[in-house]
Amino acid sequence: MSAHIALTMGDFNGIGPEIILKSAHILPPKSIVFGSKTVFEHYSDLLNLPMRPDLDWRNVVDVKKGDIKTGSLRTQAGEAAMISIRAAVESCLSGESIAMVTAPISKEAISLAGYDVPGHTEYIQRLTGSPDVSMILATDTLKVGLVTIHVALSSIFTHITKDNVLHRIVMLHNALKRDFGIPSPKIAVLGLNPHAGDGGVLGKEESTVIWPAIQESHVFGINSTGPFPADGFFGNKTYEAYDAVLAMYHDQGLIPFKTIAFHDGVNVTSGLPIIRTSPDHGTAFAIAGKGVASPDSFQSAIQLSIQIHKNRS
Amino acid sequence: MSAHIALTMGDFNGIGPEIILKSAHILPPKSIVFGSKTVFEHYSDLLNLPMRPDLDWRNVVDVKKGDIKTGSLRTQAGEAAMISIRAAVESCLSGESIAMVTAPISKEAISLAGYDVPGHTEYIQRLTGSPDVSMILATDTLKVGLVTIHVALSSIFTHITKDNVLHRIVMLHNALKRDFGIPSPKIAVLGLNPHAGDGGVLGKEESTVIWPAIQESHVFGINSTGPFPADGFFGNKTYEAYDAVLAMYHDQGLIPFKTIAFHDGVNVTSGLPIIRTSPDHGTAFAIAGKGVASPDSFQSAIQLSIQIHKNRS
Repeated sequence: MSAHIALTMGDFNGIGPEIILKSAHILPPKSIVFGSKTVFEHYSDLLNLPMRPDLDWRNVVDVKKGDIKTGSLRTQAGEAAMISIRAAVESCLSGESIAMVTAPISKEAISLAGYDVPGHTEYIQRLTGSPDVSMILATDTLKVGLVTIHVALSSIFTHITKDNVLHRIVMLHNALKRDFGIPSPKIAVLGLNPHAGDGGVLGKEESTVIWPAIQESHVFGINSTGPFPADGFFGNKTYEAYDAVLAMYHDQGLIPFKTIAFHDGVNVTSGLPIIRTSPDHGTAFAIAGKGVASPDSFQSAIQLSIQIHKNRS
Repeated sequence: MSAHIALTMGDFNGIGPEIILKSAHILPPKSIVFGSKTVFEHYSDLLNLPMRPDLDWRNVVDVKKGDIKTGSLRTQAGEAAMISIRAAVESCLSGESIAMVTAPISKEAISLAGYDVPGHTEYIQRLTGSPDVSMILATDTLKVGLVTIHVALSSIFTHITKDNVLHRIVMLHNALKRDFGIPSPKIAVLGLNPHAGDGGVLGKEESTVIWPAIQESHVFGINSTGPFPADGFFGNKTYEAYDAVLAMYHDQGLIPFKTIAFHDGVNVTSGLPIIRTSPDHGTAFAIAGKGVASPDSFQSAIQLSIQIHKNRS
């Protein structure tokens, strides 16, 4: 049975090609790198990083050497990134690859290229016809799910409903069992307000929305607890006693995750028919082409995608 | 000149008396511990911690041994805590002590005792007739100021105005110079929304409120920069390049602060005519009387109060 994975090169003016070249040694044999051979040859020469010969450097987009503008925002790079993603999704859907790992893209570049999607997750959701997906941030000691993600802070409140919090608890529970191989996951749910509302003095959502959602999750046999005041939960390392934590909004989950995971965090998209992971950083145009980009998060994403495949099998 | 400081015992059913006994050895000679001698004798016996004889264990409230209900919420403990605070404030205002360090109180206990104040800061503000105070969280590597503190998350938006953000930048700047002895402080200002609004797609406050406030602070000669996306700011340790960071709301500042400072964080109240610091934890009723409470944060608060006195002198 094949056990190779599909990689996408990401925005070729960012650090994607570099971190792929730096991670080639940990890939299963015959893994496929979707993108442009010209791009990889360019960065291979520039940074003196070899192109591992037994990998399948699959050329799915025609890029001229002169099109590469390292560190810059360019339409062509946005277009090439999206073509690579489509090819990798097809490779997974057809069973050719067991999982896909995506290098970072630039939202501005894909927008310039005419794509009206916020990012990877929504694009892959559309390509696979998935009704509902969710993002889990994972590192060895901490896994974080989110009720709301890319929403202005003043707009999150309409999404913090009992049904939505419950739905995210259930999705997180299912992903922990299926993808992370945890038979009886323990989930901690954070409060929304300072001190989780401090008994109602600093906000009511804990008692009217979050607590009822936690209680209802118990009906489904889910082991969830909370709502916890978010600052003490991370400050006292309470998270170490739980398999995952559900945050109410982007910064509440991402600030502690990035602080704790540092260079080692992985983004997992759950709810897809295929396995997809990615590093938790962006294109890093400012350091592209300099050879200093850390491949740690990307390598963790590769390892986790293989682990998820094993857990599902 | 006297160089002793004033301590308050805090809620006597919490960990306050224990962390004071554990910190006595680092106090300047003749420092005054405001509270109940009976309480300290009780915990001294219980936990086998000596009462340093050259300190002034000043009995300002009559507590019977039978009134001590370690780990429980009690009206008497709330009342005793507030009496100790009043005495310590007077000691500082009169010049008897150079600074005060407060052990944790219980908001519920002081409410039971009939006090209509959210906590220490507001009470000391009232006692000293201070028009405007602000809280700075400090540890060796990170200092955090806040635009909003104890406000329900859905209510912060009316407080995130250009004038208010500017005012907090100025207060933080002044405290860094006066209290922390930094001649030309560098201040980083966080965004409010995910990715600091991502160019306006995820919220407008960065361009309509925060950016204009930062620009106006430059008119006053203040070195402030931002708005920064909060997750990457902490994840990439960008904060190490700044003397302080201004967060927009409680959890945005407190989550990373407590995660990074762990047991070593100190709360400084700026804007008072006296110097006041405190540990960044609460009464911890659950572990009171067990001898396991860490005095690290309280000791850092003592050291910082003395340092602030030196910087101001």
